[in-house]
Amino acid sequence: MGNDQLPSWRNTHAKHAVTEFVAAVTDPGSADFVAEADRIAVFDNDGTLWTELPMYAQLAFALDRAAELGHPVSLDELHAGGMPALVDLVTLTHAGVTTAEFDAACRRWLASARHPRTGRPYPAMVYQPMLELLALLDRSGFSCWIFSGGGTDFMRAFASEVYGLPPHRIIGSVGGIEFRAGPGGPELVKTAAIQVINDGPQKPASIHAHIGQRPILAAGNTDGDLPMLDWASASPHRTLQLVVRHTDAEREYAYDRDPILGSGTGQLDAIAAAHEWTVIDMAADWSAVYPALS
Amino acid sequence: MGNDQLPSWRNTHAKHAVTEFVAAVTDPGSADFVAEADRIAVFDNDGTLWTELPMYAQLAFALDRAAELGHPVSLDELHAGGMPALVDLVTLTHAGVTTAEFDAACRRWLASARHPRTGRPYPAMVYQPMLELLALLDRSGFSCWIFSGGGTDFMRAFASEVYGLPPHRIIGSVGGIEFRAGPGGPELVKTAAIQVINDGPQKPASIHAHIGQRPILAAGNTDGDLPMLDWASASPHRTLQLVVRHTDAEREYAYDRDPILGSGTGQLDAIAAAHEWTVIDMAADWSAVYPALS
Repeated sequence: MGNDQLPSWRNTHAKHAVTEFVAAVTDPGSADFVAEADRIAVFDNDGTLWTELPMYAQLAFALDRAAELGHPVSLDELHAGGMPALVDLVTLTHAGVTTAEFDAACRRWLASARHPRTGRPYPAMVYQPMLELLALLDRSGFSCWIFSGGGTDFMRAFASEVYGLPPHRIIGSVGGIEFRAGPGGPELVKTAAIQVINDGPQKPASIHAHIGQRPILAAGNTDGDLPMLDWASASPHRTLQLVVRHTDAEREYAYDRDPILGSGTGQLDAIAAAHEWTVIDMAADWSAVYPALS
Repeated sequence: MGNDQLPSWRNTHAKHAVTEFVAAVTDPGSADFVAEADRIAVFDNDGTLWTELPMYAQLAFALDRAAELGHPVSLDELHAGGMPALVDLVTLTHAGVTTAEFDAACRRWLASARHPRTGRPYPAMVYQPMLELLALLDRSGFSCWIFSGGGTDFMRAFASEVYGLPPHRIIGSVGGIEFRAGPGGPELVKTAAIQVINDGPQKPASIHAHIGQRPILAAGNTDGDLPMLDWASASPHRTLQLVVRHTDAEREYAYDRDPILGSGTGQLDAIAAAHEWTVIDMAADWSAVYPALS
């Protein structure tokens, strides 16, 4: 098995679909060959590359940071307060700091916080099979990008290192940024303005803004990823769509609703079935879920 | 001179400053060494990489396209109408089309239109010395990016090919984009909304959003580039700032005001002098301005 590039994928349809696609688009003799510059792959993050339950990691960060700043909020209060309470929390925990200060706060939290169920640091809650897929694609001349609903600055504090992607390929929701002269030189300060909520139809728009090319591979796990998958599938090249299904109550979680935004997977499931997109059944298709802890 | 990597640069201070900087940051034995992943260079486009007089190329495109669409506007009418007239022109010529249709319209124009003074196609109005600099930086492990006030979609229609940059490294002002189901599949449609005017303090904010790393080299030619130059100069690494001065009435133009936005170079000149940034005097420092026509 030393030759197996996806060792945490069982020998099922999903693995065959991935390896056959990669072989075809990288084979200069194949009718499906795609030049390296056009081998663009886009991934959702929460629920596609790492665990998003019992709540988004970034929400856990925000709750911990609010407490640290002397304004603790409970999850119940947040649910009761609805969108205004969420905006208040984001303003308190994500604004009024420089980008460098925010990055440092994220990194401190990512190094110390533990997932409530597994006890793992959050960066160790990434899916081992997806790490193997990202590495296979990288070796095969693909450029892999993340287009997530999570905040760009939060994600870049871990995702560059964990997924092996340069920061410019990690794109999420974005708040305001102000350039100002600080005591030690020019600074970028995060403001409470929400500029981009990178979900649903915004994902293809963000892909256009940040890449300017159409992907040939897209992976997601909720209806909010559907426009991105749809956009990639209409490329003139051969394409691959991956849909992660959370079917593994024992090793991860079993659910089909986004934990916060509430968007489900009903539409996505129907379209995936109609178009024969590749569904990844976590319980059946993956022999391991998380990386071994060192 | 076969060894000269910047053959269109005269043997003056500007050339020495560039070659010495590149040598220092790429020499693993130097105290100024910068790892390849951190060798980020950012360039303004209009007036820094290509000619911006007698008017921005994109404005010439818009006027030609308005005429083609049956709504001709003269430059005098545009000046008289101020900002509302400019917004009307942009709406007419840049919105209500898919990104694919707009790209095709830009490419048709770029292939057929001619600069009024030189008779050259606009893509041949780029500065040969800057093409040589981009190539030198690329060979030296730099990632070169454009952060311009011009429109991202317009620039990508020529800049990728002419400057040798992937589309994701060409960033400018941005209008609205809507994702919709079209007759032949999903489409991105350009709307009249103005999302980002990529000038002044927006440039460092855009650099943060699109790169997520601080540049070590920045090049510009007006006060609107000052925040970008300033932001790069405050990097913890050794940095280089390049300021292009239009001093060549004979081969290009001699001026120190932005042709439309009106921002001048007064602030930039004062700060460049105070910080000993590298000023490129086009007439004195460049032996050729434009590429030879093939």
